[in-house]
Amino acid sequence: MASPQITRDDCLQMDASDPLAAFRQRFQTPKADTIFLDANSMGAMPATVPAHMQSFFDEAWVELRRQGWNHFEWMERPFQIGAAISHLIGAEPDDVIACDNTTVNLYKLLTYAWRVRLNGRVILTEDTNFPTDLYVAQGLPGALDGDPVITVCESRQQLIDSISPDTAVIYLSHVDYRSGERWDMADINRRAHEAGALTVWDLSHSAGAIPVDLMTSQADFAVGCGYKYLSGGPGGAAYCWVHPDHGDKAWPTICGWMGHGDVFAFATEYTPHKGTWRHATGTPAVIANEVFSCAADIWREVDASTLWSKHRALGNLMINLLEQECSDLGVSVNTPKEYDLRGGHIGFSHEGAGPLCEALLAAGVVGSFRKPDALRFGLGALYLSYTDIWTTVERLKEILQSESWRDPKFQKVSV
Amino acid sequence: MASPQITRDDCLQMDASDPLAAFRQRFQTPKADTIFLDANSMGAMPATVPAHMQSFFDEAWVELRRQGWNHFEWMERPFQIGAAISHLIGAEPDDVIACDNTTVNLYKLLTYAWRVRLNGRVILTEDTNFPTDLYVAQGLPGALDGDPVITVCESRQQLIDSISPDTAVIYLSHVDYRSGERWDMADINRRAHEAGALTVWDLSHSAGAIPVDLMTSQADFAVGCGYKYLSGGPGGAAYCWVHPDHGDKAWPTICGWMGHGDVFAFATEYTPHKGTWRHATGTPAVIANEVFSCAADIWREVDASTLWSKHRALGNLMINLLEQECSDLGVSVNTPKEYDLRGGHIGFSHEGAGPLCEALLAAGVVGSFRKPDALRFGLGALYLSYTDIWTTVERLKEILQSESWRDPKFQKVSV
Repeated sequence: MASPQITRDDCLQMDASDPLAAFRQRFQTPKADTIFLDANSMGAMPATVPAHMQSFFDEAWVELRRQGWNHFEWMERPFQIGAAISHLIGAEPDDVIACDNTTVNLYKLLTYAWRVRLNGRVILTEDTNFPTDLYVAQGLPGALDGDPVITVCESRQQLIDSISPDTAVIYLSHVDYRSGERWDMADINRRAHEAGALTVWDLSHSAGAIPVDLMTSQADFAVGCGYKYLSGGPGGAAYCWVHPDHGDKAWPTICGWMGHGDVFAFATEYTPHKGTWRHATGTPAVIANEVFSCAADIWREVDASTLWSKHRALGNLMINLLEQECSDLGVSVNTPKEYDLRGGHIGFSHEGAGPLCEALLAAGVVGSFRKPDALRFGLGALYLSYTDIWTTVERLKEILQSESWRDPKFQKVSV
Repeated sequence: MASPQITRDDCLQMDASDPLAAFRQRFQTPKADTIFLDANSMGAMPATVPAHMQSFFDEAWVELRRQGWNHFEWMERPFQIGAAISHLIGAEPDDVIACDNTTVNLYKLLTYAWRVRLNGRVILTEDTNFPTDLYVAQGLPGALDGDPVITVCESRQQLIDSISPDTAVIYLSHVDYRSGERWDMADINRRAHEAGALTVWDLSHSAGAIPVDLMTSQADFAVGCGYKYLSGGPGGAAYCWVHPDHGDKAWPTICGWMGHGDVFAFATEYTPHKGTWRHATGTPAVIANEVFSCAADIWREVDASTLWSKHRALGNLMINLLEQECSDLGVSVNTPKEYDLRGGHIGFSHEGAGPLCEALLAAGVVGSFRKPDALRFGLGALYLSYTDIWTTVERLKEILQSESWRDPKFQKVSV
């Protein structure tokens, strides 16, 4: 017997009992009736940002300038933001810092993991890892002491089969940025440790959407992007986390004044700060961090389990509605349907995915296209309603039924 | 015969014939009658910043979100800003990029210089180099391939005497952040090259104030801070420069997607971009760069020689007035008086420098104190007038004559 049809009323009812519904108004809504499904690329703007930054410019920069270092929290922001998002990744507040961009943090922690490795010479990764993650690893042979070898596997099974005592580090994206597939983090951590290897995880496409529990799953190192699900602002700081067992094992890769044990001593000799904080490099990105702090204020109030539950329900609804409304219109969900196997976005394949993405944009739905035939919807659970998902699928259905996506004006496709 | 006394009218006359006078109104002035002499720490805010950022938040973040990557100049900003400041450091526009912070850039270029070295194993520096610069170097032994050795000299003469065929890299701040002493960059570059060594310069306390000519002086690598004399905004991007001869010699230290030869190809294999741009690491700091772009708009219009001439004249006036008005009140100029030997700030020593700095602050003059007895005035030539220098010294003189700096309320000193 087929499942009962989902109706718009069902979605309205789910919205009425949504424990996170009040968070929607904490974010600025656009003027037009637009539904943003791009949290995997750029999170929504906290509503407090413009006023907060206006006063920052007037009071901090114009009136105080260099005295801002003494009067404001400029130096503490990297640690405050790290603490504010720590519960979303199952970390202790003091073990997370927001700093630099994702690429720089990947470099810092991958080289640190290499330095404190227990055995082996191989850094193991897979070819569906995000490109910049791969590039960081490819740059290490010939540069670092100890001759690291990078092995890029072509499938998840090949990677699992390749783990051996010669594996120094396993270096993976928790969720694939295209397919949306999720690694079983606890399983890989266990396999790694059995072989004497350490793990470095990129959480960019999972943190703030699905459950991440770094401590319980016994991960070693993690890095993530601040401006996707976490709404830290375009190009905002990324973050890094080091398991407390490894925190004090070696100097950081980039020894800078913000990671010094006594920042304002201006000592000639470097002494690392304890734990993760030693990886803070140089002057914090004060302006960018002020923006991110508006999102941090929100995240402090969000219960992680409630967030994950809503994200799961939004994803299930999206999958079910795509199948109910559009499966006979050439739409085939291509991210894992099983919850434990998927990440922050739901995607489907369609022969006209590129033009479809443009036609959806014209209809007020923002998704993202990936060559050759995939369309992704990144779900920001703090500001999306269940009715938004309904409306999205209705708009998609209309475009497919009318074949309006074949219009020449939609054939020039943005990436 | 003594030089004629400088009067306030002389300063007014200099202001009347100042070719850069119009730039003063391009920066936001504080509400109170405050003179900021902290350009060595934090440059003034371009007046366009608040409106530009307000529209950025509304239009780019709220309305477009991820589409901003396609609709705006987010990806080009690092290169645009680099080009806009290139004439201030004697570089070609395409050889400078704004990215990351100073510490990360120092790390990137020092390790790159190490990798493309011609001979030797020693990285030579001096103990008055800025602390974070020293820390970056101290973190390299044991981490990089090839066993670098860091030698920290205790004087400039010792450094010059230490240059030998075993020197791989000479790694210096162009201007000392405390004493204000300037290295003869061309001389050191020549000595380095004669020994087969390469040079890495930190321009944080010189660029935007005094002449820097990287190409003519035949420097190899340079890095600098964006938020001091360059007014890029608190914690804004730093910049890096690579001489075109070295641009394509090796992969960058941190291989990231922004330094890839074809950024949006999302290729699995890393291929470096040509020249300096390969050092761009990951996602640019979009928000911070939008702020910096307001300063870049100003710098594009500034003739470097005119800027340097005014900075020189402001510095000469400051020195002459300090001596004329305050030398019998315990003030002794401690930065080099000879122009070719000094940098962006003028400093003096006084037994009560700390409390004096606080008393000046209360009188509307912002300088900075460095232990044990130094007070520094960083001169931002685009927005300071000659009369500002007069007023500063008058206020200082009054504080010294009245001994108001001995008031208990000024004894708690900020750094």
